Amino acid sequence: MTTPLPRSHPRVVPREGMPAAVTVYEVGPRDGLQAETDVIPTAVKSELCARLFAAGTRALELTSFVPPSWVPQLADAHAVVASVRPPEGARAVALVPNRRGFEDALAAGVREVAVVVSATDAFARANLNTDRAGSLARSAAVVTDARAIGIPVRGYVSMAFGDPWEGDVDVAAVVDAAAELYGAGCRTIALGDTIGVATPGDVERIVDAVEDAGVPRSALALHLHDTYGQALANVLAGLQSGVTEFDSSVGGLGRCPYAPGATGNLATEDLVWMLEGLGIRTGLDIAALARTSSWLAGVRGRPHVSRVAAALTRTPPELSEEPSV
Amino acid sequence: MTTPLPRSHPRVVPREGMPAAVTVYEVGPRDGLQAETDVIPTAVKSELCARLFAAGTRALELTSFVPPSWVPQLADAHAVVASVRPPEGARAVALVPNRRGFEDALAAGVREVAVVVSATDAFARANLNTDRAGSLARSAAVVTDARAIGIPVRGYVSMAFGDPWEGDVDVAAVVDAAAELYGAGCRTIALGDTIGVATPGDVERIVDAVEDAGVPRSALALHLHDTYGQALANVLAGLQSGVTEFDSSVGGLGRCPYAPGATGNLATEDLVWMLEGLGIRTGLDIAALARTSSWLAGVRGRPHVSRVAAALTRTPPELSEEPSV
Repeated sequence: MTTPLPRSHPRVVPREGMPAAVTVYEVGPRDGLQAETDVIPTAVKSELCARLFAAGTRALELTSFVPPSWVPQLADAHAVVASVRPPEGARAVALVPNRRGFEDALAAGVREVAVVVSATDAFARANLNTDRAGSLARSAAVVTDARAIGIPVRGYVSMAFGDPWEGDVDVAAVVDAAAELYGAGCRTIALGDTIGVATPGDVERIVDAVEDAGVPRSALALHLHDTYGQALANVLAGLQSGVTEFDSSVGGLGRCPYAPGATGNLATEDLVWMLEGLGIRTGLDIAALARTSSWLAGVRGRPHVSRVAAALTRTPPELSEEPSV
Repeated sequence: MTTPLPRSHPRVVPREGMPAAVTVYEVGPRDGLQAETDVIPTAVKSELCARLFAAGTRALELTSFVPPSWVPQLADAHAVVASVRPPEGARAVALVPNRRGFEDALAAGVREVAVVVSATDAFARANLNTDRAGSLARSAAVVTDARAIGIPVRGYVSMAFGDPWEGDVDVAAVVDAAAELYGAGCRTIALGDTIGVATPGDVERIVDAVEDAGVPRSALALHLHDTYGQALANVLAGLQSGVTEFDSSVGGLGRCPYAPGATGNLATEDLVWMLEGLGIRTGLDIAALARTSSWLAGVRGRPHVSRVAAALTRTPPELSEEPSV
């Protein structure tokens, strides 16, 4: 009897109605790391981005130009951008919370930015120091400025499926925010399940409602957290609804601020396993992603939460055997 | 500002083409615990079953009547069955690997059994001490005996989507095994993704192929491990293919023998979150399931891997704060 081995790739069995290719938009260096309390050295962030590009990533959110007092982890945004060498044709994006952040990002050499609005007043107050309408006005102004100089903008609608203060979120508020950002000139609208509570019917309904308001499905992305383990099923619902851009973080990097044990973004490896099994092209190399997760787990001294990475590297999520750098 | 709270229930947004209700078949006490190396006291197993029934479980696989030398964890099968008081109408099932196990189960008072066959020779040799054809013949004989005395039988087809020794598994072998078990008189055929590698197109294809061979969709169950994080997306594909019975284990109990860090069965809480969000009745109480997971994590001194339980109990997967019993 030979030794049993983990399967390193899924069997490819396409389904009808699926796209031929999708964009996997990697948010690990920004959305994943911003939740870390231990500040990670710039050199590690730079190596993380290099490893991701080498694994095939062609859409990468590098960092956020927020005031260092808000998120000390991202105080090195300028240095991170300066250190990264995106391959030809790759998108290297920075989040900008306001005009000051946008100007800083431009000065650092960023050529694509993302803005964020909240679908709820509560999240806007807690995270953006304004209310829902204020977050929209602030971001729309940045979009206008960016479009005027040919900089493409991605628009996030946070708390699009639920909010830990307000509970259920009004679908009309999500639709209005998405339509306003799109009308202002955003190229992509990323609907964020910031707390990971959505289920597949919810995804289908929101995508339909946003399209009814004039935002084409081809301009939508889904930004799904896996807090309740629902993210990949929601990606499947999104694919069936015509969405072709999905956010994820390598190793499932990220945390949930109100629930210490809860996970963060959907893990890129787990997403790519499903997409590859469905015969949908991503350009990403599962093994290289899993190695990157294990490397980063060693550096952080924290387990990754990607199930694919755990299976492929034979590394328990509780303990990485990879050496730290 | 009030304190942010985890959402305790999903918003209900039905999708078209979904069933009104499904059976969640709980395998934690058997499939979950059999992978544990530390033997758990019978009293804990008995309390686990009682808590599961109290949480609404109406289909529970209690244990397996295997030789104690094979699985020391399940050597107390008789005592577990004797200690459990299933509510009126609930199914209390025991796995029986062969005729001897079937006779022992009957003697213990079991009134529904499950048999297992392998879709591959390699798994049959490693786990059942026979080959594929031998596992089929052995189980078919038990089914015949059981049907003769009115005992319903569930038939598992293990390694239906992939095998760690053989790689991809021949679809025809899976179909033959399912059709033979159904023809012998099994009431339900549970297609097992024992190593968790399947993706949604794979699920749809196997369900279609098995039905083409004469096993109605209404007689199928999906037994999905979450080793690669794919299980819940595959449940969604199964629902869309007309499957209405799904296996899971509370807290995602269970491990993967060849990959130390990999997870076991799909977590019941995560499954029920999606089903409840889709408006599909299960009869299960998410909060009671999450409390059971946390209690069991404390008893085992090991983290659960249910993401819903982690979010709801605010208990990091790495460390349960629940007292041990």
